[in-house]
Amino acid sequence: MSEPTSLVGEAEQLDAADGLAAVRERFVLDDVTYLDGNSLGALPAHVPARVADVVRRQWGELRIRSWEESGWWTAPERIGDRIAPLVGAAAGQVVVGDSTSVNVFKALVAAVRMAQEDGRGGARTGPVRDEILVDATTFPTDGYIAESAARMTGCALRPVAPAEVPGALGDRTAAVLLNHVDYRSGRLHDLPGLTAAVHAAGAYAVWDLCHSAGALPVGLDEHGVDLAVGCTYKYLNGGPGSPAYLYVRRDLQPRFDSPLPGWNSHAEPFGMRPAYAPASGAVRGRVGTPDILSLLALDAALDVWDEDAVSVAAVRAKSLALTDFFLRCVGAYVPDGRVESVTPAAHAERGSQVALRCDDAGEVMKRLIERGVVGDYRAPDVLRFGFTPLYVGFADVERAARVLARTLAG
Amino acid sequence: MSEPTSLVGEAEQLDAADGLAAVRERFVLDDVTYLDGNSLGALPAHVPARVADVVRRQWGELRIRSWEESGWWTAPERIGDRIAPLVGAAAGQVVVGDSTSVNVFKALVAAVRMAQEDGRGGARTGPVRDEILVDATTFPTDGYIAESAARMTGCALRPVAPAEVPGALGDRTAAVLLNHVDYRSGRLHDLPGLTAAVHAAGAYAVWDLCHSAGALPVGLDEHGVDLAVGCTYKYLNGGPGSPAYLYVRRDLQPRFDSPLPGWNSHAEPFGMRPAYAPASGAVRGRVGTPDILSLLALDAALDVWDEDAVSVAAVRAKSLALTDFFLRCVGAYVPDGRVESVTPAAHAERGSQVALRCDDAGEVMKRLIERGVVGDYRAPDVLRFGFTPLYVGFADVERAARVLARTLAG
Repeated sequence: MSEPTSLVGEAEQLDAADGLAAVRERFVLDDVTYLDGNSLGALPAHVPARVADVVRRQWGELRIRSWEESGWWTAPERIGDRIAPLVGAAAGQVVVGDSTSVNVFKALVAAVRMAQEDGRGGARTGPVRDEILVDATTFPTDGYIAESAARMTGCALRPVAPAEVPGALGDRTAAVLLNHVDYRSGRLHDLPGLTAAVHAAGAYAVWDLCHSAGALPVGLDEHGVDLAVGCTYKYLNGGPGSPAYLYVRRDLQPRFDSPLPGWNSHAEPFGMRPAYAPASGAVRGRVGTPDILSLLALDAALDVWDEDAVSVAAVRAKSLALTDFFLRCVGAYVPDGRVESVTPAAHAERGSQVALRCDDAGEVMKRLIERGVVGDYRAPDVLRFGFTPLYVGFADVERAARVLARTLAG
Repeated sequence: MSEPTSLVGEAEQLDAADGLAAVRERFVLDDVTYLDGNSLGALPAHVPARVADVVRRQWGELRIRSWEESGWWTAPERIGDRIAPLVGAAAGQVVVGDSTSVNVFKALVAAVRMAQEDGRGGARTGPVRDEILVDATTFPTDGYIAESAARMTGCALRPVAPAEVPGALGDRTAAVLLNHVDYRSGRLHDLPGLTAAVHAAGAYAVWDLCHSAGALPVGLDEHGVDLAVGCTYKYLNGGPGSPAYLYVRRDLQPRFDSPLPGWNSHAEPFGMRPAYAPASGAVRGRVGTPDILSLLALDAALDVWDEDAVSVAAVRAKSLALTDFFLRCVGAYVPDGRVESVTPAAHAERGSQVALRCDDAGEVMKRLIERGVVGDYRAPDVLRFGFTPLYVGFADVERAARVLARTLAG
């Protein structure tokens, strides 16, 4: 083990040189080292006042008039357009609402329908696209929903590790659902390469951005992603259970055939027509009445990005510096063999978290939390530490590794 | 036209004798006569402080710990159990979350699956249940979602007026989706009789309670309803876009096969299992991470019912008195032939709103709102006035009719 004082000093220097250090002041933090923003982002300090205004004035005083006067009706697309630059999308392609799970269902069923329509289009001999590939290492809900989407569209579901997707693609593949970053290991998958492989096979790529959006560049438009979903309560700090989003690439929007065609996605929602006619654009991804309090808390939370002109590139650079430094501190402080990183060392394969395999991980995390270092535990043996570059500093990182070493020492 | 002063005096007497008059003090109201609680309920006065606590303390200070320590994880069932008595359900059968549209999808697909399973069970010669009947006069989203549910389960969809449902039922009917109260006309349908007819045909009944829950007795358990859904932002005053709920009758829960099996409905959500195994009980109706801010605003709003021990029977009695009085005042003040009530006169067929057919309804409502009487307009020719017995008084009713008469006089 190296001398703690040298890493403490290095953390101080890194914090002093951190171009994003000032953004931390925008968040409500305390003396806890909070490394669980990959599960629930911290509270931006201006959000409570904004939520209070939505409740007291917009709901309490304007009441029903707020659907128009407070911009409630258009909030899903307006806020979608604020998320768009963070995931590399031009305006008009992202709509906010529902949970990630519900959006995975919309995206996957719509992708299968497009693939099956392609098969029917013109060429009668086109392949029958009746298979969905799903990331075998995915966050569970994606797999469960994919199974339901497969069942309801008459497809077979095949779980495949992301690295094996290129070899598993074939002329029966309709859609592929992949995670950008593995929630457990923190591994970043090759979105450009995998999307290109899916397209080469004539299938559609659906990406889950829950563990990447807000932490690293995604480049949806640049890489020609078809559909994507993500939550907003992790690196986007939207608050507990804040609404998820759905991206539908512009040229696919006219073909987006939603399995959840609610009145909010109707071309004329207040026409109260008995027959469904889908709206144009991202609105087509809506379903029912959106959840206004949570939606507008998220809207406020996104101000952090605009007001400090925070770039995703700067966030990514700091994220890699934080995780590099954490791995160095763990290496320096923790006795050999006590933990093992399951997060790739290569930057190109690393998200914004570090996952350490550890005996008694559940018990170890419990004691870390008691000692003021908050990460989380994923069964059976993984300690997860998430690094939100907007508010985590290098001193936090050094402290977390030091407390971890002390905890493991008994 | 009768003498206004007599109806003004009568309103005063009715308000003085109103056992629910004190509940009005629990709401934030002003000099507007608010008759649009059937679209967005008014703000209960204690809700802002509760929401502020959820944001500042539960999210801001406890952060991720609140999933356990603040009861976030169990909120959907806990709040469901608070709604249950308002719709005549014993505990353990209602779960809160998602929008009404999404819950209609879950309920209808699950109903069809049960009906088709019944057909296969034992008797090989059982009928193929491949038809869904849907209320032809329904709120649009129910029809759109029913169409999607039919398409995805291989059923035909047949729109039928509620009164014609008994004659339309047959041995191919799988499920019937009905509204308890027609959103446009305010007509209350015969839930006990129609449910019994659906059951006699061997099908499942799904009821939409958006326009009845909180305004009149529903009696889900008593009448053997199979599945029901409803929103919480109308007569339950949960706030804009507050989460909807799903009722699954207890004995059907083990067979509830959700088309949206998210990780929150897994038997072991933190086991992160690759295979889906549904939880027991109402939890099975969950999908993804619930929307905590809106959910806990709703939780707070429901206090109004408990703290004043408001009974649904008392609410219903006042609701009928309010709508009766409104129809009398309209009859007294408005020149004959200028408006026509499309809401049934019979109490057994009336919800908690009055819909008046009127030429230039859109323009008339605009002017009413300018004059401080807020109802709403439904194309092409309906003025809707909703009466929330918790906070609407008889003086409001008299004033609304008087202003309407003045507005129609030009």
